[in-house]
Amino acid sequence: MKALWLEERALSVRDVPVPVAGDEALIRVRLSGVCGTDLELARGYYPFTGVIGHEFVGDVVESPDPSWAGARVVGEINADCGGCEACRAGRPTHCENRTVLGIAERDGAHAEYLRLPVRNLHRVPGGVPDEAAVFTEPIAAAVEILQQVHVLPTDRVLLVGAGRLGQLVAQVLALTGARLRVVAKHDAQKALLSARDIATIEPGEIEPHRWDIVVEATGSPSGFELAAAAVRPRGTLVLKSTYRGEIALALAPFVVDEITIVGSRCGPFAPALRLLERGEIDPLPLIAERYPLERAVEAMQAAAEPGMMKVLIER
Amino acid sequence: MKALWLEERALSVRDVPVPVAGDEALIRVRLSGVCGTDLELARGYYPFTGVIGHEFVGDVVESPDPSWAGARVVGEINADCGGCEACRAGRPTHCENRTVLGIAERDGAHAEYLRLPVRNLHRVPGGVPDEAAVFTEPIAAAVEILQQVHVLPTDRVLLVGAGRLGQLVAQVLALTGARLRVVAKHDAQKALLSARDIATIEPGEIEPHRWDIVVEATGSPSGFELAAAAVRPRGTLVLKSTYRGEIALALAPFVVDEITIVGSRCGPFAPALRLLERGEIDPLPLIAERYPLERAVEAMQAAAEPGMMKVLIER
Repeated sequence: MKALWLEERALSVRDVPVPVAGDEALIRVRLSGVCGTDLELARGYYPFTGVIGHEFVGDVVESPDPSWAGARVVGEINADCGGCEACRAGRPTHCENRTVLGIAERDGAHAEYLRLPVRNLHRVPGGVPDEAAVFTEPIAAAVEILQQVHVLPTDRVLLVGAGRLGQLVAQVLALTGARLRVVAKHDAQKALLSARDIATIEPGEIEPHRWDIVVEATGSPSGFELAAAAVRPRGTLVLKSTYRGEIALALAPFVVDEITIVGSRCGPFAPALRLLERGEIDPLPLIAERYPLERAVEAMQAAAEPGMMKVLIER
Repeated sequence: MKALWLEERALSVRDVPVPVAGDEALIRVRLSGVCGTDLELARGYYPFTGVIGHEFVGDVVESPDPSWAGARVVGEINADCGGCEACRAGRPTHCENRTVLGIAERDGAHAEYLRLPVRNLHRVPGGVPDEAAVFTEPIAAAVEILQQVHVLPTDRVLLVGAGRLGQLVAQVLALTGARLRVVAKHDAQKALLSARDIATIEPGEIEPHRWDIVVEATGSPSGFELAAAAVRPRGTLVLKSTYRGEIALALAPFVVDEITIVGSRCGPFAPALRLLERGEIDPLPLIAERYPLERAVEAMQAAAEPGMMKVLIER
């Protein structure tokens, strides 16, 4: 089968064997999405050799549990062992022995086929088109914020960053009824927010130390600085992006102001699918470009352009 | 009256006017305690000119509310305005216009007299001696951890640091029934913990990524590093000390492991006094030295010695 292969920071579309299902499900991928993590992998921020990609929708073609055969599915990306302390404590996404689809020790979704444990799969409701279902994983990551932090409808919430993930975070946060403002860099990002009636704010307009909850979704030191200056005493700063390298940080203000900082990664798929099914989240306007799998390397290049929204890879 | 005066990093005991009570209470100080913050002020980490000191027990000698006259009291150190957004939201210790006893815009407790708003005062229960009551403020700071974080009786809790504040934090955390281990540097610190049946642990014995809650009470970059490496995915790291300057920090692991970092400062006096009255916390073994107010500069020098426990200043 064709797959987007990463090896020593070099990307290529190559022929690789179709995965052997074994005790897992074999899924024929319909559509996959390029994520910022894919770009970071390609830049060598994390060591990985193999097929990248972890946002997908596809059809189960083989399964140890026949009830899944033929199902149109999305899949949670962390494959857990079920037996370690984290698994037994109900934190399978933090499994100590986990493999992660297209990220760690497990070939990914920018391919014709992938395999995943059956327990990772979620059926896609009939009314949700492939182009929306392929966003389930990043929507789940946005929903994770609500899983970790109680956002009050009366809260003032600031979101810093309105890229691929930031747009979905904005849509999810808007559902809480909180007073949401979003810092967006590019006009296209602002237009997408505006079309959802989500208000933007310029950095110079942000009242410092006034926001109950601030979500940082840029992954840049300047974004972190902006976010940290905005959060109120006893407020919460959610880190929704990973940061390269080290940031020089004065910790004393976080202690004096009793700030809570919450790291946030993968989220739950079931609520993400419910929100998609109900039409509460609309990812379709975020689709910027589509490439066939044969041109997946170009797709990655396109996704790396500043301000680029979602690039999809078609089969 | 005599007072320990700080001006341009120079300490002296000098004669200053007795404070005018005005609409506040005037308190004759019986005993005050030297805190790490006093030492930091003297080193110039924060700008302050005036009488330092904020841990005290004393007698009300003048009060706009006569029911307080003659009462033996301790006092919350943040004097709030009552009208700003933080005050109205129930966060008076984060009042935007606050003055802080012996720390910011308000003369402090290493003096014969001090003034504080009546609403800051708490009566000391009869069974609590002055030598214990003078610890109310740092005990309250330790209790603040329980106010901010739900420590489960089944949790594994690591405390890094067993100095003046760390010892009180250890005693407070031990009350939760959690499996507590404390990293202590000095033998005297270990002996104090051992006398309370609180187990210590050597840095080399700490299982990484296994502790539900880690409290950092050293204020040093190496303490932070130790603490951060110990906390489990989705665990909580409490910062109970202020940090000088900046720390170079890789934030990505906190995001990937979804760690919550909680800054923690001043705490509630009422539970601290209840715990003292019930004998659940015993600060008396922490008293290392006592100096008369005339020798307060020496008291500060003594308190700055490595591993030194609580130094009290008597009237």
